[in-house]
Amino acid sequence: MNENALPTLYLDERDQSLVVLDQTRLPGETAWLRLKNAPEVADAIRRLCVRGAPAIGAAAALGLYASAYRRVGEPDFYEGLEKDAALIAGARPTAVNLRWAVDRLMEKVRMIDEPERCIDVLKAEALAILREDEERNGRIGRHGESLIHDGDGILTHCNAGRLATAAHGTALAPIYEAARRGKKLRIYADETRPLLQGARLTCFELLAEGLDVTLQCDNMAASAMQKGLVQAVFVGADRIARNGDTANKTGTLSLAINARYFGVPFYVCAPTSTIDTHCETGADIPVEERDGAEITDLWFERPMAPRGVKTRNPAFDVTPWTLITAIVTEDGVLYPPFRF
Amino acid sequence: MNENALPTLYLDERDQSLVVLDQTRLPGETAWLRLKNAPEVADAIRRLCVRGAPAIGAAAALGLYASAYRRVGEPDFYEGLEKDAALIAGARPTAVNLRWAVDRLMEKVRMIDEPERCIDVLKAEALAILREDEERNGRIGRHGESLIHDGDGILTHCNAGRLATAAHGTALAPIYEAARRGKKLRIYADETRPLLQGARLTCFELLAEGLDVTLQCDNMAASAMQKGLVQAVFVGADRIARNGDTANKTGTLSLAINARYFGVPFYVCAPTSTIDTHCETGADIPVEERDGAEITDLWFERPMAPRGVKTRNPAFDVTPWTLITAIVTEDGVLYPPFRF
Repeated sequence: MNENALPTLYLDERDQSLVVLDQTRLPGETAWLRLKNAPEVADAIRRLCVRGAPAIGAAAALGLYASAYRRVGEPDFYEGLEKDAALIAGARPTAVNLRWAVDRLMEKVRMIDEPERCIDVLKAEALAILREDEERNGRIGRHGESLIHDGDGILTHCNAGRLATAAHGTALAPIYEAARRGKKLRIYADETRPLLQGARLTCFELLAEGLDVTLQCDNMAASAMQKGLVQAVFVGADRIARNGDTANKTGTLSLAINARYFGVPFYVCAPTSTIDTHCETGADIPVEERDGAEITDLWFERPMAPRGVKTRNPAFDVTPWTLITAIVTEDGVLYPPFRF
Repeated sequence: MNENALPTLYLDERDQSLVVLDQTRLPGETAWLRLKNAPEVADAIRRLCVRGAPAIGAAAALGLYASAYRRVGEPDFYEGLEKDAALIAGARPTAVNLRWAVDRLMEKVRMIDEPERCIDVLKAEALAILREDEERNGRIGRHGESLIHDGDGILTHCNAGRLATAAHGTALAPIYEAARRGKKLRIYADETRPLLQGARLTCFELLAEGLDVTLQCDNMAASAMQKGLVQAVFVGADRIARNGDTANKTGTLSLAINARYFGVPFYVCAPTSTIDTHCETGADIPVEERDGAEITDLWFERPMAPRGVKTRNPAFDVTPWTLITAIVTEDGVLYPPFRF
């Protein structure tokens, strides 16, 4: 791990605010956002300034604390806190870590009737989530590393790295760990339309670590597999159902189908906080539909589609468990059939 | 067919130049290029101002004529003509129609020793190619239309429409024909990274015809199939080997694999001029690797990938015949095993 790596998010003790690296501006600019209340936190999550299921969880927790900190002294402290919690938890629908983190904090404080004591508990719990994420990343990395061989070509999609978590990432943690142990790897990064997290974030952080990364369009993954360039696919997850069906960034399903066709192992890496035991199968996972302007306008200098064309822009898709070779959590490498 | 449709390319009789719609500037601008010699023609093909295998063939033929027309009177007319032919035929490596069209013209004139007579023959043959393309488009449309049912959702990739040919297109010809006969269709257009021919061209021409088109990123095709939105996939081809293996725009292979997984029929539409009997299988088809700046820089206002990242940018991929439900040519609907 590069000592100079940019932190994805942290609590600034000086003013008890949540500071997040604004990932919408990478790789061109490194700018931080200082978030002090729930509307700012929810907005930063919605606009993907901070993204990646584990990072969203940590940001939600720290952000809820920062917001509560400023409410101390308000007559309706608890009412305000509940409002903040609902606002942050509802910022995006698919990543379960968001609601998981908020619920975890709120459960700790619902029986505490002193605001000052309440914010101490929120802070401790939020920092615990951050620390646990870091620790879980390390364990995912070590478990996942055992699946990687010297000389492998590894394909990844979106960004499930340092920038998606508080530490080494989920899907990229095994890659960092394998590199640390001296395995030579070639990494193929899908650009990941429409928001280009692969091109902007994964390439950025892998290059910063000195790794051998090649960028390609999402639709080139199949030909990379056909040519034998890819020995394994590693992706993250935004929500995992009890049967192992996995919601992850749009395009993951296609990769899993391609990997199966070409006999390439397909690994999902995620902390157990990503597992939603309220979802029996992937059919129960809500998939966020985002603004079509992300496809037609967001990055472009000139119109890239005729005005008024309809769009489909699901931010995620659901990969059935039958296409998943293994799920790597902090507890180990789990093989199907899954039963969470 | 919309009477006001923009022509993709035509011969301007006033000055015997080839006029092509500059497709790199669609959908924002409609601008024409007037091409008078082989370097201009080859450059327009290389820069994808004119693209799509059949359109490239027609442009090569008309462009070779326009270039030869200007050489009449030169002492080394035939030497110049051979040079022009080689330059144009070599502009791009994958679409076989390019070489096919140039070879067809050159075979007609190699035995003619009068430049004036030679250019008359070149002109007649080039216009014949243009006319035949139009006529073949119509036949592909009628054959392919039989595969489409009222209410179908049809997924297409890249642009194999009006803008890829001299007339109604290849993959889109059956869609236009089905719509003409009153079938209601929903069309899903993959944006087709990196050059966005789906977003810029397919959406443009389908909207101009009043059809119901929805734009999506390439990586969303799998979830569209998973949701039951897609009843058939129609794509074009840049080169078809004797066994039916088909080179087409990058991303086609992934679609074919996804279609097989979801039980969706996968149709390739192309004139027989796309079949290369010199290629036994897809392994014999050269695949053009293009500049990585198309992925990282071309359309973007700001850096979309860190400077210096390596890229893979194959313009095409090869779909094995085993994944193709049928190949639709002007001769009919052909089912596997194929033997060309």
